Order: sequence, then C-alpha cells, then structure tokens
Amino acid sequence: MSRVRVHNFSVSLDGFGTGEGQTLEAPFGHAGTRLHEWFFPTRTFKRLDGPAGDSGGSTGVDDAFAGQWATGIGAEIMGRNKFGPQRGPWADEAWKGWWGDNPPFHTPVYVLTHHPRASIEMEGGTTFHFIDAAPAQALEVAQEAAGGLDVRIGGGPSTVRQFLAADLIDHLHVVVVPIILGRGERLWDGLNELEQRFRVESTGSPSGVTHLVFVRR
Amino acid sequence: MSRVRVHNFSVSLDGFGTGEGQTLEAPFGHAGTRLHEWFFPTRTFKRLDGPAGDSGGSTGVDDAFAGQWATGIGAEIMGRNKFGPQRGPWADEAWKGWWGDNPPFHTPVYVLTHHPRASIEMEGGTTFHFIDAAPAQALEVAQEAAGGLDVRIGGGPSTVRQFLAADLIDHLHVVVVPIILGRGERLWDGLNELEQRFRVESTGSPSGVTHLVFVRR
Repeated sequence: MSRVRVHNFSVSLDGFGTGEGQTLEAPFGHAGTRLHEWFFPTRTFKRLDGPAGDSGGSTGVDDAFAGQWATGIGAEIMGRNKFGPQRGPWADEAWKGWWGDNPPFHTPVYVLTHHPRASIEMEGGTTFHFIDAAPAQALEVAQEAAGGLDVRIGGGPSTVRQFLAADLIDHLHVVVVPIILGRGERLWDGLNELEQRFRVESTGSPSGVTHLVFVRR
Repeated sequence: MSRVRVHNFSVSLDGFGTGEGQTLEAPFGHAGTRLHEWFFPTRTFKRLDGPAGDSGGSTGVDDAFAGQWATGIGAEIMGRNKFGPQRGPWADEAWKGWWGDNPPFHTPVYVLTHHPRASIEMEGGTTFHFIDAAPAQALEVAQEAAGGLDVRIGGGPSTVRQFLAADLIDHLHVVVVPIILGRGERLWDGLNELEQRFRVESTGSPSGVTHLVFVRR
C-alpha cells in the first residue's frame, strides 16, 4: 500500500515552519538557516550537497532520521513557495528551483500553483510538473506517477498543513528545533486535536532537536 | 548561588501552556488534562496526590525529570491564574488554591496579583503571600525568603514568559506534549531568539513527550 510521507520538516518551538519575508537570497525568510542547522552536519545532507562518494558527515540519530527521506519514494508534491520565491503569474520561466541542474529528488515532482506552466525535465530523473489542484486530486496524480511507491509531501508549511487537514498523511516526521522565530508561517494552525489520529513517538538528539514521528492510527 | 528554576512546564506543539476558558472545574480550560497526561503516571505525581509512603508510579525518564521540581527550592512565585480562576478584586477570600489543606509546595509561595490580600498559612509549611510586583521585585522578595535556596517560577504561561523576557530564569524545564490545542495562552510569544541565551538539551520519552532543558549560558 502506497503511503504518503513527510520527512525532515523542521518547526520552531513556537510552531513556525518557515520565517517571514522569503526572497531569492533567503528561502526561509528571517529564519535564515536556523531551522536547519541540525541537518547540515549529517552525512545525508553532505551527500546531497557534495560530490558523490563518501564525503563525511555525522551518522548519529539526526542522520538516521534524515536519511529516511528518499527511500521508497516515487513522487513528491510541493507547494509553490518551496519551489521558488515568485508569486502570481510567472514573469520569468527561466527559474528552475533552488537546487541546480540535478535536483536531489530524482522523481516526478508536482508543484502546486494556481499558475500552471510547462513541465521542466531536469538532470538525474527529476521532472517538475505544475498543477492547479486540491490536495486529494494532486495526490491521485502523484500516486499514479509513483507506480506503487510512496509519495512525499515536501512542504512548505501550508502545503503540509493542507494535507494534514485533509487527513491524507500516513507518516509525518517533524523536527522540533529549540528556537523561537516569533513570526513566519505556522504549521499547526487549524489542526486542533490532530494527535487523536496518530501514534506519536519522540526521540531527543544531542544536537538539541527532537524528532517526532506521527504514524496514522 | 541561588538559581531561578521552572519545572514540569507543559506546552503543546503549537506552543500553548494552557487552554482557553479557565473555570473552577477546568483549571486548564479546554485543554482539560491533555497537557499533563504524561505526569499523572509518574511516581512523583502519585506521591503528591496520594498518601505518604510508596504508592507506585512509573520511574522512567518522565519521572526522573518530574522529580527534580522540589529539590533545593526555598520559595515559589506563581501567577494569580495558577492560584485560582477568579479575576479582579477578591469577591470571596475563602479560596485557598486548588491544592487542599496541605499544598505540595511546603515553602512560602508568592502569588502575583494586582489585588493583594492577607497571607494564608496552610498545613505543611506552605504560606501564600499576595504581592503586586514586577518580576524582578517579586524575585528579590522570594529570594530573601528562600534563604539561599532556589526560587521556582511556578507558572502559568504569562508568568513564565515575563520572567523569561526579563532574563531572570536560569533553568527552564519544558515538556513538549505532542498535542495541538489550537487556542489558549502561548508560552513563547515575544521571545524571538530566546535560544541564544541558553544551552538546550532534548530528551525524548516513550510516553511521546519531549523534555527540553534550557540552561542559561
């Protein structure tokens, strides 16, 4: 049975999944890199970011969780704000995401937007498709493309929140980062009593973050 | 050196330290007992609530943290809403708190209120004093009474928040409970970048909660 999964989704203690004021230079707005400092030292991240082969990195609990993100995934769905900082109609179709010529997804990626545009085939198996669809519809398309593998909901906060509200998520890995952002986009709004639909497991880390895994009951 | 400590302070994932709509029957409003389910099974809680002597209870990580609350404490400061559900001038001075004749504090307790009233001496060494004071002033009074021992800031959320904002807290134990309350009183508001003043340690628990310890740098 194909599952719907969220991985490595960082939130601050005050519940923000990203900061305020996204720009080309600041994908997470005023949060800067504060939500993801736990991730950068991991082997999983260093392999994404660096050349192929063993490039070091930590292999403790943070990496154990981080590394789950790619296994068994056949497609991703992401919000438009994860894809880029533009809003409204596309002024410039040259933008191909933050990830360079060979993005780390290596699957079809469905970008939710009210302004569809032509698909973009990247190196390494990633193709960006742009669709204007509600969560359940988008999931149907992505599951078809995933060929029996799981579908990852890649963020940002409002995309994850909409899929949670629609009760479409089976596995949710949230990393609670002990920082206070004060403003930005909240993950948990409108999800009162969400926990009743999940079993929840908490694992602390020497880095100070907490890995929460929600598995649908 | 006398320290200022917070213990066993539960917050929801969306950052609420209590629910909305406190009443005599519902000290935590619509949150009910959801923020404290982790605490009730512990040996520490069962000893507070039950007869003296060994009365069972869990002795794992939740109890290890829970049990730190009383050691080395010489006085507590609490907000008026922790003491009772009344607001404004005291209509009825018969109210002596939620804890019966022998409250678990066994020290002087300073209740912050804009409506001071006569002190109440309880059984077992607890005396409630009512003072109208800013955090730093209240702390001075409590430290004097504590005779070199530590002072506990007992809650609720706005009291802890004010002491954090004034940078008066040395040790903060927060229990992140994997529930979404949706409304109530937020602990973290106005504390952007709080983490820069603390070292933070995270410990998960089989109960699903996370124990965060903030120790002032």
